Amino acid sequence: MSSRVAIVGATGAVGQDLLATLEQRRFPISSLKLLASSRSAGQRLRFCGEEIEVEVLDERSFAGVDLALFSAGGSISAKFAPLAVQAGTVVIDNSSAFRMDPDVPLVVPEINAHAVATHRGILANPNCSTIILVMALAPLHAVAGLERVIVSTYQAASGAGKRAMEELLESTRAALVGEEYERQVLPHPLAFDLYPQVDAFMPSGYTFEEDKMVYETRKILELPDLPVEATCVRVPVLRCHSEAVSVALERNLEPDAARAALARFPGVEVLDDPAEQDFPQPGALSGKEEVVVGRVRPSRAFERGLAFWVVGDQLLKGAALNAVQIAEHLA
Amino acid sequence: MSSRVAIVGATGAVGQDLLATLEQRRFPISSLKLLASSRSAGQRLRFCGEEIEVEVLDERSFAGVDLALFSAGGSISAKFAPLAVQAGTVVIDNSSAFRMDPDVPLVVPEINAHAVATHRGILANPNCSTIILVMALAPLHAVAGLERVIVSTYQAASGAGKRAMEELLESTRAALVGEEYERQVLPHPLAFDLYPQVDAFMPSGYTFEEDKMVYETRKILELPDLPVEATCVRVPVLRCHSEAVSVALERNLEPDAARAALARFPGVEVLDDPAEQDFPQPGALSGKEEVVVGRVRPSRAFERGLAFWVVGDQLLKGAALNAVQIAEHLA
Repeated sequence: MSSRVAIVGATGAVGQDLLATLEQRRFPISSLKLLASSRSAGQRLRFCGEEIEVEVLDERSFAGVDLALFSAGGSISAKFAPLAVQAGTVVIDNSSAFRMDPDVPLVVPEINAHAVATHRGILANPNCSTIILVMALAPLHAVAGLERVIVSTYQAASGAGKRAMEELLESTRAALVGEEYERQVLPHPLAFDLYPQVDAFMPSGYTFEEDKMVYETRKILELPDLPVEATCVRVPVLRCHSEAVSVALERNLEPDAARAALARFPGVEVLDDPAEQDFPQPGALSGKEEVVVGRVRPSRAFERGLAFWVVGDQLLKGAALNAVQIAEHLA
Repeated sequence: MSSRVAIVGATGAVGQDLLATLEQRRFPISSLKLLASSRSAGQRLRFCGEEIEVEVLDERSFAGVDLALFSAGGSISAKFAPLAVQAGTVVIDNSSAFRMDPDVPLVVPEINAHAVATHRGILANPNCSTIILVMALAPLHAVAGLERVIVSTYQAASGAGKRAMEELLESTRAALVGEEYERQVLPHPLAFDLYPQVDAFMPSGYTFEEDKMVYETRKILELPDLPVEATCVRVPVLRCHSEAVSVALERNLEPDAARAALARFPGVEVLDDPAEQDFPQPGALSGKEEVVVGRVRPSRAFERGLAFWVVGDQLLKGAALNAVQIAEHLA
């Protein structure tokens, strides 16, 4: 059965990958509405050979829409997702607005597809860094039990949106010729630079992004007490996030057994051959659907544990692909 | 008393910062010999207003030299440092060749200056990432006792030498105009990219750089059993290393007390004001002598512990400055 679909935030970095992913996966669509702010309205975007004009999002946008994919930031979701639900639309929301709402399933389909059926109109797409992390944690938890998790991220500019990606390129171009560059979007310099702040600081001293990695990981894995410590860092990379992860495990797990469990898991690939210096790199994995794990080795900090490295396309599995997978489970 | 000094590897990235640091700190020098491979011999480098011609390093280079600062890689040190010692020269070696030799002191003067006196001709300058790490660990250990350490690094191109820095700039310039770039020095792409490999892979699955951070940290802090787990990552930054660190402590330590202990420690500064979004960034700290700590917060992985972020200039405190400080303690 085909759906009448709307994309809110169609002109953004995730919005454009939503379009590409829906087309590529031949999601059954009877009509497609592209919604954005008045700044972007009037733009025309291609979908399945057609050009579709972007309309201004407003209170009446959702009449006759079965499914709306939101990716326009938390405040837009907070305001318009409930209106969409009132209009009878099912919402898959890519913002953080509803993720921790106990009535809203937070879904990574390979891990907790069963949660989809519990929705009451809104389903939440997890934070990008969290999706990439839990894709690697879930198979390890299944075979050896997670006890604690420490993660340092290397997050691409795409996580801050399309204009952030452009700003990384432009500020780097300026740095190479020794020109001053006035930042528009990013909160700190990123050209040949990096900074340990993604999203706002919380009173705890952690950032909101670091909190998301704690609370969303617990909700998705259904491990409400799992200790998770994150340091989230923005790096001058365009669109793949990388993460250095250390886990303490309940039961001993040899690296080979861990690699086998990871490789078996749908949506995960293992690229891990030190002899050939093979491991995932963000540059090479841009555009790839799978999350890729490498550098699996025994922990040196925990009696039973592992250290590993995981890379995923922030805009695909970290956002658009996971949202479309949720939509496929709905349908 | 002035010394007759030689610098081995004078034309490299560390070599040039050795020259600048010796000049800036007015190290008492009666004569200065610059040594390098035949490829670099004949170049002229400035020191205290004079131009000094670079000579070819050979077996007879050390006659009449009191102190030699080596920074030309492990194999050069392994071959020539013992010859220098035979000639009566004291060697401060920046390579990994002698660091774990029980007869060779491995010194960060703020931490274990007492070890300088035990030398038998060679003193080792620790690995850059290790120096930056232990500068932050030592004051925390003194007040609360270290139990375990997990560190993820964000290492600048400078750690791979001057040509690696040039390659980062050139490959980035090529990427911006969509040109192919053939790497000469770096083992993997680094333009808008990063990779979890610094130095060679060991049979354990860890890299040699990750091993250095374990074994050198234990030796410098005189904690032979301290669990240390490192993931070392090269990032597209020019010359400051950053590190995300998690520590378990024997005794509880509030972030404010930790910041106070860090700020008191010579060579360490604290820049940690989340409300103002202030924390150390590698771009802004290039050329700074101090190691700078920020993002200090209670651990979420350990019952008693902290997470923090530390940045240091890899060529200064991570290499040249620390070597010159050792020389000052010798004198």
